[in-house]
Amino acid sequence: MISKKMENMVANSSAIRAMFEEGNRLAGIYGKENVFDFSLGNPNVPAPASVKDAIIALLDAEDPVVLHGYTNSNAGYEDVRQAVAESLNERFGTAFSANNITMTVGAAGGLNVVLKSLLNPGDEVVVFAPYFGEYRSYTNNYDGVLVEISPNTVDFQPKLDEFEQKITPKTKAVIVNTPNNPTGVVYSEETIKKMAAILEAKQKEFGTEIYLISDEPYRELVYDGVEVPFLTKYYANTIIGYSFSKSLSLPGERIGYLVIPDEAADSEKLIGAANVATRILGFVNAPTLQQKLVKACLNEKTDISYYDRNRETLYNGLRELGFECIKPEGAFYLFVKSPVEDEKAFCAAAKEYNILIVPGSSFGCPGYVRLAYCVAYETIVNSLPKFAELAARYQ
Amino acid sequence: MISKKMENMVANSSAIRAMFEEGNRLAGIYGKENVFDFSLGNPNVPAPASVKDAIIALLDAEDPVVLHGYTNSNAGYEDVRQAVAESLNERFGTAFSANNITMTVGAAGGLNVVLKSLLNPGDEVVVFAPYFGEYRSYTNNYDGVLVEISPNTVDFQPKLDEFEQKITPKTKAVIVNTPNNPTGVVYSEETIKKMAAILEAKQKEFGTEIYLISDEPYRELVYDGVEVPFLTKYYANTIIGYSFSKSLSLPGERIGYLVIPDEAADSEKLIGAANVATRILGFVNAPTLQQKLVKACLNEKTDISYYDRNRETLYNGLRELGFECIKPEGAFYLFVKSPVEDEKAFCAAAKEYNILIVPGSSFGCPGYVRLAYCVAYETIVNSLPKFAELAARYQ
Repeated sequence: MISKKMENMVANSSAIRAMFEEGNRLAGIYGKENVFDFSLGNPNVPAPASVKDAIIALLDAEDPVVLHGYTNSNAGYEDVRQAVAESLNERFGTAFSANNITMTVGAAGGLNVVLKSLLNPGDEVVVFAPYFGEYRSYTNNYDGVLVEISPNTVDFQPKLDEFEQKITPKTKAVIVNTPNNPTGVVYSEETIKKMAAILEAKQKEFGTEIYLISDEPYRELVYDGVEVPFLTKYYANTIIGYSFSKSLSLPGERIGYLVIPDEAADSEKLIGAANVATRILGFVNAPTLQQKLVKACLNEKTDISYYDRNRETLYNGLRELGFECIKPEGAFYLFVKSPVEDEKAFCAAAKEYNILIVPGSSFGCPGYVRLAYCVAYETIVNSLPKFAELAARYQ
Repeated sequence: MISKKMENMVANSSAIRAMFEEGNRLAGIYGKENVFDFSLGNPNVPAPASVKDAIIALLDAEDPVVLHGYTNSNAGYEDVRQAVAESLNERFGTAFSANNITMTVGAAGGLNVVLKSLLNPGDEVVVFAPYFGEYRSYTNNYDGVLVEISPNTVDFQPKLDEFEQKITPKTKAVIVNTPNNPTGVVYSEETIKKMAAILEAKQKEFGTEIYLISDEPYRELVYDGVEVPFLTKYYANTIIGYSFSKSLSLPGERIGYLVIPDEAADSEKLIGAANVATRILGFVNAPTLQQKLVKACLNEKTDISYYDRNRETLYNGLRELGFECIKPEGAFYLFVKSPVEDEKAFCAAAKEYNILIVPGSSFGCPGYVRLAYCVAYETIVNSLPKFAELAARYQ
């Protein structure tokens, strides 16, 4: 009785989620401390203490009718949007105003709002493998067609030659995600400049507008002082989708924003469409208490040093065991080469040691596996002997 | 550059919202106390005091990693869903478990999840005029076709003879909203029984399953001791979409739930589809702090007596001035007959007296206007002399 589109979706339901549930099952049998669950990107570093303080201060100071009420615009509270704009301007030298900001139900909500606003059936959306598998579903929601660029497994920067070839008159959008899930790679400024040049040339060639959608839940999670280029400065038709899920460890609260710059083609209509899409997709507005909260905490962020220690320990530990992996510069994922071609078999083998990892096929990149290291440090330390046993099977 | 579907939506963007913005504009010119804005269903009664207390208690007691984290299932926290199920069982003698409950981003989010789960392109969704105009957008999101049953302006119970005629083999769902927006009418038990009998017969005739979707944001807002029938008890293929927006005055927080009973056809798949739809539409999960909050406040509700006084004062005041209107038994709307056929002209005339009301055309029922009386009592009292001036123009 369910819709045909959903029949397939339910059947293929997220491998990541299934793995997570498997983790709970194993924890029930072997004890939580004996299961090494690297399957889900659910931050394990608590929200900064200022989050609790800010919520209580808001409850004390604000009129509950306003604090919990519908916002005047579906885009969110004017003061929150203005504060987000000013914070971006200060950090990146941009010139946004409240009008350029739409508060969203996380980055996932924001991406849906953008794609609903942009896509006609058959429009193409380009992604670079490996990519967050949900982009396929989001694109499919609006009858768009996902076009994959094959992975560059040397350094996981996007393959720009293939990109150039695969842009067509039907290309409406390109999604990038840097720092990247699942590789942790940050696209370099050189990459971004070349990508922008290709897009400009193709727009001219086809007489079209191609929107570059930058999905940025991991913007603040970078290590070793790496700089993440701010994309609106390189390409006019850039739309940013941000989330506070990771930067403030609030993934369940569903709060983020879109930036639609004035420089983007048809920006006024697009901002209007984002407003309407926010309403009719049923978001109505981003959760109001969370909007006010992130305004209060715009200068806060989660304790990155915790993830950094995990990164170093897991990366070095696995390398010593002979696993191949690029060192991530951001996010909280390690993308490890499977010692056998069929990485699903490798994931199944890992499960025999109570190690839960996600096959790269879920990200359009078979032959690799993803480990989310947003886990307890002890989990990493205690997992290494198990990884050693696992590695021994492949020597 | 925006999608064709959205071009139309942006052009026709919500008359209600436009009216609301007009209210702010007029308030800027004439002062807020001299504008009588009956345009938006934004509750003006604050959330019960227990809401603030419960949030602070949650922040004190719960691990922030869990309180603000992704929920294990996209349907929401298991304990919250179980508590909702038990609360319904206690109130309505049902036998739901956590498995039957999906926490949603308000009722609007819930309806989108259901329609995404059910509709194939061209499937028909029946609504009874007057109806909440967003049903058209929600149906259109999934390429469904909205089928309107014309209004019964005698008592605003649905026209069941026309309903019976308009059900076809393509009918996939019927949406009811009782207590009703915009009329405030509660569908009687007799109406519900007849509706269920018609649906049963049509399912048999066509060999189809037709889902009755009950949109219930106003369930708790009833007056004079009126009972609202609980629809799963009358018809097996019933899905309930609930919201705490009005019952706890939390419309901006976006928290509600779906009930998909085991008795509904294909319920297991449908529950699975609701899970996946929650994820891929970008909701991911209902805001987590709000989930825990509503669990703590399941037995609380907003101060109905406030709305009741508004209802009596506005209803009696307008009747004395000669306006025709059915007395609402629930929600916080009055649906008043326009003294002239073109109710948009009447709305324009009302605006000359700084009275903002919404044309019935927005609800598929021209010739009437909607007044939302979730406003300050003084607004109602002070508006009545203005309504008198307005009425004088039509005598």
